Amino acid sequence: MNHLPKSFEALIDHLSRLPGIGKKSALRLAMYIVEHKEDQVREFAETLQKIQTDLKFCRICGNYSDHELCNICSNPARQNGIICVVESVKDLLAIEETGQFSGRYHILGGLISPIDGIGPEDLSIHDLIMRISGEEVTELIMAISSTIEGDTTLYYLSRQIGEDVRISSIARGVSFGGELEYADEFTLGRAILRRLPIDQIFNGEH
Amino acid sequence: MNHLPKSFEALIDHLSRLPGIGKKSALRLAMYIVEHKEDQVREFAETLQKIQTDLKFCRICGNYSDHELCNICSNPARQNGIICVVESVKDLLAIEETGQFSGRYHILGGLISPIDGIGPEDLSIHDLIMRISGEEVTELIMAISSTIEGDTTLYYLSRQIGEDVRISSIARGVSFGGELEYADEFTLGRAILRRLPIDQIFNGEH
Repeated sequence: MNHLPKSFEALIDHLSRLPGIGKKSALRLAMYIVEHKEDQVREFAETLQKIQTDLKFCRICGNYSDHELCNICSNPARQNGIICVVESVKDLLAIEETGQFSGRYHILGGLISPIDGIGPEDLSIHDLIMRISGEEVTELIMAISSTIEGDTTLYYLSRQIGEDVRISSIARGVSFGGELEYADEFTLGRAILRRLPIDQIFNGEH
Repeated sequence: MNHLPKSFEALIDHLSRLPGIGKKSALRLAMYIVEHKEDQVREFAETLQKIQTDLKFCRICGNYSDHELCNICSNPARQNGIICVVESVKDLLAIEETGQFSGRYHILGGLISPIDGIGPEDLSIHDLIMRISGEEVTELIMAISSTIEGDTTLYYLSRQIGEDVRISSIARGVSFGGELEYADEFTLGRAILRRLPIDQIFNGEH
């Protein structure tokens, strides 16, 4: 790679900083961009520049938005009083894809992690607590990772939030349709400990 | 994906046009870009815009270049009179990586393909023929794909170029260090037909 022009090297460098893109992939992408430079690349560059100014974070929940409020917060058809708390926009999108939730969201922007120096004040926990009283929230669904950081955040939130708000966590266990032998040991062990009476499996909502 | 802001959707759209990037990867890359928008993205956009103006194609061989002539064509240490003919810059880079060639290059910009409507006049074949007389070229090494299009191009060039220029093709056969069982049938069959005396394998450069 010692014969590359500087402008081309800079492009490869930027592409290889993207997650999951190694040097080889970056070279391939850069070549594609160069071969298509006339038509599409100008627009691509403009889109990247526009994202800096046009993309906003929803003032209420932190979701990506074109406006001050996101599509979900500004939608009167969504259910009030029930907030699904997620770590990131990615998780919000994953839950939206399921079509199983019609309430509002709150994006924490991370999880509490003393090791990484991330405390409650680095996340949007204060905003969430303000929302709970302001929006007369009765239920929080915690849809955060089942990790040490996730559990720490869960515990912290449960201590901060008054008892008149129901807090639930999304179910944890083996995947639906997944074969048992592929479930990891820990999940399988927890799934045994948290077993449910069979009538709750076939009746009920869970 | 029906709740995405327009500016974000446009970014995903541009990313998913890149080769090997599906909708899911594009979403992941777009999220990464948005999370890092302050610092790196402005530079990334500038790099993309600069590539439009700063990256040139070498006037002699067609390689990417910062200047009118590329690093190879302007390097006095490279051997004159021997040109390696490749389809694209990607192939030039692959050959440079091997460190086995110290001559000059010529990039065809494609291969002759009547099915795709690509004729000799769409490639830099005329420029190559001009170079052969201008640079007193004595040998052409054809390093192009072993496909119908490659062979068509090889045949066409061999007819266009005078007999005082030696034309060779890079060796075709089973990979070095590759296990025979993984070689494809056609390559293996050709490798048997084109077998070499054992002393040519162990001695000489063949």
